[in-house]
Amino acid sequence: MILKMDRLPIELPKPNNPSPNDAAAIQELLGGKFGEMSTLMNYTYQSFNFRGRKKVRPFYDLICSIAGEEYGHIEVVSYAINLLLTGVTKRGIDPTIAPLADAVDFRNTHHYIASAQASLPMDSMGHYWTGDNVFNSGNLKLDLLHNFFLECGARANKMRVYEMVSDPTARTMVGYLLVRGGLHVVAYAKALEKLTGVAVTKLLPMPELSNNAFPEAKKFMEQKLHLELYTFSQEDYKQSALIWNGPHPDDGQECYVVDGSPKGFPAPDLDEEPQLNAPIGDDFDPQVFADMAKKMGIKYEY
Amino acid sequence: MILKMDRLPIELPKPNNPSPNDAAAIQELLGGKFGEMSTLMNYTYQSFNFRGRKKVRPFYDLICSIAGEEYGHIEVVSYAINLLLTGVTKRGIDPTIAPLADAVDFRNTHHYIASAQASLPMDSMGHYWTGDNVFNSGNLKLDLLHNFFLECGARANKMRVYEMVSDPTARTMVGYLLVRGGLHVVAYAKALEKLTGVAVTKLLPMPELSNNAFPEAKKFMEQKLHLELYTFSQEDYKQSALIWNGPHPDDGQECYVVDGSPKGFPAPDLDEEPQLNAPIGDDFDPQVFADMAKKMGIKYEY
Amino acid sequence: MILKMDRLPIELPKPNNPSPNDAAAIQELLGGKFGEMSTLMNYTYQSFNFRGRKKVRPFYDLICSIAGEEYGHIEVVSYAINLLLTGVTKRGIDPTIAPLADAVDFRNTHHYIASAQASLPMDSMGHYWTGDNVFNSGNLKLDLLHNFFLECGARANKMRVYEMVSDPTARTMVGYLLVRGGLHVVAYAKALEKLTGVAVTKLLPMPELSNNAFPEAKKFMEQKLHLELYTFSQEDYKQSALIWNGPHPDDGQECYVVDGSPKGFPAPDLDEEPQLNAPIGDDFDPQVFADMAKKMGIKYEY
Amino acid sequence: MILKMDRLPIELPKPNNPSPNDAAAIQELLGGKFGEMSTLMNYTYQSFNFRGRKKVRPFYDLICSIAGEEYGHIEVVSYAINLLLTGVTKRGIDPTIAPLADAVDFRNTHHYIASAQASLPMDSMGHYWTGDNVFNSGNLKLDLLHNFFLECGARANKMRVYEMVSDPTARTMVGYLLVRGGLHVVAYAKALEKLTGVAVTKLLPMPELSNNAFPEAKKFMEQKLHLELYTFSQEDYKQSALIWNGPHPDDGQECYVVDGSPKGFPAPDLDEEPQLNAPIGDDFDPQVFADMAKKMGIKYEY
Amino acid sequence: MILKMDRLPIELPKPNNPSPNDAAAIQELLGGKFGEMSTLMNYTYQSFNFRGRKKVRPFYDLICSIAGEEYGHIEVVSYAINLLLTGVTKRGIDPTIAPLADAVDFRNTHHYIASAQASLPMDSMGHYWTGDNVFNSGNLKLDLLHNFFLECGARANKMRVYEMVSDPTARTMVGYLLVRGGLHVVAYAKALEKLTGVAVTKLLPMPELSNNAFPEAKKFMEQKLHLELYTFSQEDYKQSALIWNGPHPDDGQECYVVDGSPKGFPAPDLDEEPQLNAPIGDDFDPQVFADMAKKMGIKYEY
Amino acid sequence: MILKMDRLPIELPKPNNPSPNDAAAIQELLGGKFGEMSTLMNYTYQSFNFRGRKKVRPFYDLICSIAGEEYGHIEVVSYAINLLLTGVTKRGIDPTIAPLADAVDFRNTHHYIASAQASLPMDSMGHYWTGDNVFNSGNLKLDLLHNFFLECGARANKMRVYEMVSDPTARTMVGYLLVRGGLHVVAYAKALEKLTGVAVTKLLPMPELSNNAFPEAKKFMEQKLHLELYTFSQEDYKQSALIWNGPHPDDGQECYVVDGSPKGFPAPDLDEEPQLNAPIGDDFDPQVFADMAKKMGIKYEY
Repeated sequence: MILKMDRLPIELPKPNNPSPNDAAAIQELLGGKFGEMSTLMNYTYQSFNFRGRKKVRPFYDLICSIAGEEYGHIEVVSYAINLLLTGVTKRGIDPTIAPLADAVDFRNTHHYIASAQASLPMDSMGHYWTGDNVFNSGNLKLDLLHNFFLECGARANKMRVYEMVSDPTARTMVGYLLVRGGLHVVAYAKALEKLTGVAVTKLLPMPELSNNAFPEAKKFMEQKLHLELYTFSQEDYKQSALIWNGPHPDDGQECYVVDGSPKGFPAPDLDEEPQLNAPIGDDFDPQVFADMAKKMGIKYEY
Repeated sequence: MILKMDRLPIELPKPNNPSPNDAAAIQELLGGKFGEMSTLMNYTYQSFNFRGRKKVRPFYDLICSIAGEEYGHIEVVSYAINLLLTGVTKRGIDPTIAPLADAVDFRNTHHYIASAQASLPMDSMGHYWTGDNVFNSGNLKLDLLHNFFLECGARANKMRVYEMVSDPTARTMVGYLLVRGGLHVVAYAKALEKLTGVAVTKLLPMPELSNNAFPEAKKFMEQKLHLELYTFSQEDYKQSALIWNGPHPDDGQECYVVDGSPKGFPAPDLDEEPQLNAPIGDDFDPQVFADMAKKMGIKYEY
Repeated sequence: MILKMDRLPIELPKPNNPSPNDAAAIQELLGGKFGEMSTLMNYTYQSFNFRGRKKVRPFYDLICSIAGEEYGHIEVVSYAINLLLTGVTKRGIDPTIAPLADAVDFRNTHHYIASAQASLPMDSMGHYWTGDNVFNSGNLKLDLLHNFFLECGARANKMRVYEMVSDPTARTMVGYLLVRGGLHVVAYAKALEKLTGVAVTKLLPMPELSNNAFPEAKKFMEQKLHLELYTFSQEDYKQSALIWNGPHPDDGQECYVVDGSPKGFPAPDLDEEPQLNAPIGDDFDPQVFADMAKKMGIKYEY
Repeated sequence: MILKMDRLPIELPKPNNPSPNDAAAIQELLGGKFGEMSTLMNYTYQSFNFRGRKKVRPFYDLICSIAGEEYGHIEVVSYAINLLLTGVTKRGIDPTIAPLADAVDFRNTHHYIASAQASLPMDSMGHYWTGDNVFNSGNLKLDLLHNFFLECGARANKMRVYEMVSDPTARTMVGYLLVRGGLHVVAYAKALEKLTGVAVTKLLPMPELSNNAFPEAKKFMEQKLHLELYTFSQEDYKQSALIWNGPHPDDGQECYVVDGSPKGFPAPDLDEEPQLNAPIGDDFDPQVFADMAKKMGIKYEY
Repeated sequence: MILKMDRLPIELPKPNNPSPNDAAAIQELLGGKFGEMSTLMNYTYQSFNFRGRKKVRPFYDLICSIAGEEYGHIEVVSYAINLLLTGVTKRGIDPTIAPLADAVDFRNTHHYIASAQASLPMDSMGHYWTGDNVFNSGNLKLDLLHNFFLECGARANKMRVYEMVSDPTARTMVGYLLVRGGLHVVAYAKALEKLTGVAVTKLLPMPELSNNAFPEAKKFMEQKLHLELYTFSQEDYKQSALIWNGPHPDDGQECYVVDGSPKGFPAPDLDEEPQLNAPIGDDFDPQVFADMAKKMGIKYEY
Repeated sequence: MILKMDRLPIELPKPNNPSPNDAAAIQELLGGKFGEMSTLMNYTYQSFNFRGRKKVRPFYDLICSIAGEEYGHIEVVSYAINLLLTGVTKRGIDPTIAPLADAVDFRNTHHYIASAQASLPMDSMGHYWTGDNVFNSGNLKLDLLHNFFLECGARANKMRVYEMVSDPTARTMVGYLLVRGGLHVVAYAKALEKLTGVAVTKLLPMPELSNNAFPEAKKFMEQKLHLELYTFSQEDYKQSALIWNGPHPDDGQECYVVDGSPKGFPAPDLDEEPQLNAPIGDDFDPQVFADMAKKMGIKYEY
């Protein structure tokens, strides 16, 4: 089970330049083979299916902790896409002015037909995310190797998407993912080291460019976000600390575990897009709820 | 963001009759079009993408609360599959005795090749779950109608899978899902009622057979599990209560919201399957971790 | 069995502005999850597979009648696409002038490679239509709820595609579909009402914007096209009238059933595109057929 | 547009031996790459998209006529599947006796979960039919060659499915398809001959085994069903006769065109399967409709 | 088994105008349904699976010979794509200048995210090549008919892609494929002729436009490349000559078989794209290998 | 370009117990995500797309050499499947005895409908192989890590399929793949070592069970097949030897490169299956070819 928070791990700036095609490209980091849906679901299924965990619980705890974090990653990528798509078509409810006319030339028409200018579980080419992206052999060493490879592949994708987008909303988000995904790269490397004695962290960075080359990532590293692994749990998964410890391969600083999650920031309220009837087509009266809320003693504002 | 718990919403009995083909059929409730991956991801994306939520927050809060619960549902279906698959092939590390020989005749060969006798994000026919199953128009009424239909379709699938499996592990799990999924059916019906004034709950039950016909479901209803909606959050989503209230259409009892989650039960430790090298092939020495744990002051047992 | 007519339900104007990308967007209404292939095939399979129809034949007849109409809808969407694609590349048979050069930048390259500037059973993102889009639980209430939801979802897509395209060919076609698909929305709502007593039509319109906001739709409504359900059969499916009756929720006018089909309009003859060798590359001599026709007493002109 | 008839082209006997796995195999002839969905949709799209048809109308008319017939073929395959699946699980509405228990071992679990023991648009391996199966280059010669190949491939599949199933329902249906599909093979061969002068019919039969080797097919040939091409239209597509004429390659008898369709046989009423809530779960009262029917002067019996 | 050569069948000129969207379109000829992956894999599987080959070995040998050639075709299409993509984004390792910014508007974002500006096994719409494209009934006549159709369909695609691209790299490659694929068309036509006596070659050219209309193709024909079939084997497949002989239908020149392969041209060395870390991110020192090479007596230069 | 040989790398014994379901399971090693189609196509595309190869040619040569070998692997898996499927249904051309009746209960009905009891490019669940399985970032270190992981995953699949099948045909083939795939595991480990200095080979074996536990594999190791890397080229790829050298991690013996390929064994002639019209339905007269062969001076026997 999980508890959900109405908060994002970082504060996303509003876009300077909302861009439909940047948003379409960023979909890769959400629903691509190496996107956050993949990391989330790989570790989630590995956590459910982990056999003989009692004997090797620190590995189980590590995978669970990272699985917990990945949920916040699909969230933050979705919000970045949503912010970039906010206001990219003409606002209003009159269909005759063709408010969505420009969208026929955009890269992702489903952002306008299947969603209301919002994220979808697909990649930058419009391929839907699929369960085929989940690897879970049950063999611990092989699953860890997979996860290490998956995170390196994901890092390559993040680097390339960073090179495609200049807007601060996009770059802040990708910079954050580079740091936190980078931590996961190191975490699985350390796990393999603990299991086998081989100095896997020395393969890093992969690809070779350091996170320091990305100013937004660098800023997060100055906040030590490359060093602290959260358990993303109130009470469980503390044995992650038996793996996540020792020096970080980038700068030699000590790695450490933090129980729970970062405090985070309130999820942004996304603007309505009335030309898409989102959220509702016309004259819903929130007063109905206000009256009920008063009666039930529940806080409600609009 | 989420916090993850190492607990399941219910206690799953050990199977009387582990069965590879029952497990294969149950995959439908996990990775099928109407399985728990679909309910989880539909509401999760609807929560991320919800535009203009400030004006209609009770609906947003309801969707978020249910999204939170669905994670526990993919978890409990996975564990039921895993328990039913535990021990269905010959144990041991000698490959020459063909410990997996029977598996060539089983319905799902990937349970033995791609996973270590464990769940996969696919349905009973081996189709992978796909992001194509997510519907999110952004129009509130249409999304609620979709969710209502999705839950009714999911209920039909649960009823049919119940009719396929007799083992108590399977039936306890499905009975639980019938009650909680049944609550979600009612919740979306009530949401549509609040939004439109139409008595949508009177369409229920759909399909027409009552949950009372399922003994395991009935038992959970006696514990009032059809009445209480959890926020699945420490602090957020409380305005769900502006929708989830009033009489339950089945028995007229009052519906109410509970902050947070049920207490739950510890996740079962799944047996090793050494013929599949799961979790590890041979002589890993847990003492290594024991020593580290001692040094770091972390609890570790094996 | 069916009888096929060489006629379209409406007269499609020639495009003012042939547009490859408008045509690509309109593909959504043909091969998308909520396109006409989906409505056609859902009701077609529901009609073949309907168990116990004797007891509830009016529902069976309604589904059959609507299934019959949907064929004309895939037809009219296809022709709209074909007209919009006519002449968008350079005409001629000399390949060295690169007559298709512009197509590398268009949204749907398969319009030029896989077809001869013509429709394909795929959506606006190039996803092929799939049988996975067919829902047919066999439970009447659930299937009707599905169909109601499907038509509402289809209506949302039509509204959005309308907002993307300004050309009269496209808008006439979408306006027509809004009215006839709108009739199907109401028909399934009435069916649910008949089956359950719940006032499902009061949920309409969904999305909230009325068809009156679309001038081309309005024109068709003035011709009462939102009121008359055709059986699309010479002799069968007359019991549809036990469901399709009473006031229309939009304007309170009486709904009524018409046996057979609308008279329709001749299917347009589409221009050749010689650069695509369509229909034939060079010097076919139709006189061959003229001679045969004369001999066989069959009418043949060219 | 089409007109739909509540009739099948042949009378299907009730199965001697209902069989879930025969039904699963027959799915290939419905939703397989070479199944009737493919022939239907290939010719349907080719008819909509046919450019320059005025010049070569006999080919257009032929494709339209055959497209019309294929609808009856998806129908007759569906009904054969449905009859073979009727009664294969335990009847009744009590879920606790596990009426669907055997289905976990059957080849197609979706027949029980996704449909109510009825056909689905998928093949014998559970792959959904897809629009990717439609070929429509727009070049007449190439499209005719494709159609000729498609029908030959379809014939091979029919022959092999015939060899898998012994029940008279199945064999009658396949025997019929062998004859009618065989006619389509010849029709496209004759079309290529007319267009090019090459004696394509001499390539037949392909595969080499004659339809005479199949007793059920032979019986239909004795009724001349291999000789008469229907226009499957009330008024159109008569120029098919400019192609479909001359001797049949099998027996030298004269080929001829019949306007309209065969008279056919009433579609069978399929038994209810109450364990699947099909069509409805419990106590629907048809008297409601009887009263309405009386009032409206419509014939209604139950 | 195969032996691989580091040589291409032709010399590809450097592009005048590298073009991301031309490269995206050319993907159709690589990973499309009628692309070279399909011809390669169809004949490869037909060669492995050929039953009773002893009796009809010339057909087996012909299929094997052509299968061998097709490998060189996927190679030459890949290289053409790679050359067209070389240098289309800004070179350098600083990500902050957004070197890939333009790519968000290109047709194929995976060229920049999933590969390093290089080919992928997908078509021009981003659909991955799939094994579903392989046809292998095992019936010789039907498989030959398929292959004949496949090559004609492939030829149509090549003609259309030629009409899309003007760059000499692209046109040289397509011209070459037109000639060699054209030879394969004729080869399967001759095979059908040998098997059945029907003059299948008289159906050609299909589509009707001659290869002489393509100047680059014409040039290769002047080198007799439409006349000589290679066995693409050192010792085997010589009985191809029992089929590949007699006059060529285009110009009446004699067809003949050449043992082995053309000599070919060295595979071009593709430029690095450092912004994509391809091949490596920074300061790899090739001297390491130079020293080893010296020690081992192996030639190594850089 | 390639040269093809009519030889397999090993001699496959005839099956003791032909088995349709063993054959269906073995499909995983051919068309599965970790099957030989994947290894073949990954390295093939990496070889075509390798940028900056001049600087790091030993890595390029290694990938090319292994790509060359993988072709023989898809071949040997196909033949093993084909041999196991030979004779599993009743032989004869009379369809009325239902020679394929048993096949409706087998795991892979496409072996009988889509092929003539022969291999298909799909996995054990019937999923087609897809280009989505190809990874090629262009970054050398990441691609090598991928290849290392891919080969380890492939090895796990081979081990599990071995545990499913007891027949000597199957086990000989899998034993061979374990040794040669095992060599590829080590080769990519050594490549990573050369590039980074990290002792990646020390992670082996992965999964932990040694190849010595598989008697058939052990036999091939006694022939030193785990030590010798072939260039699979007449003249090229010799710099592989700069990577493939030094001690083998299993037994410390010296690794070495052999130019060209193993000599291999003639490809087996597969029996006809006349009930599937394979290769031809009836009375083809090979004398036709004999006469031609005589005239042309080509060796031809039957």
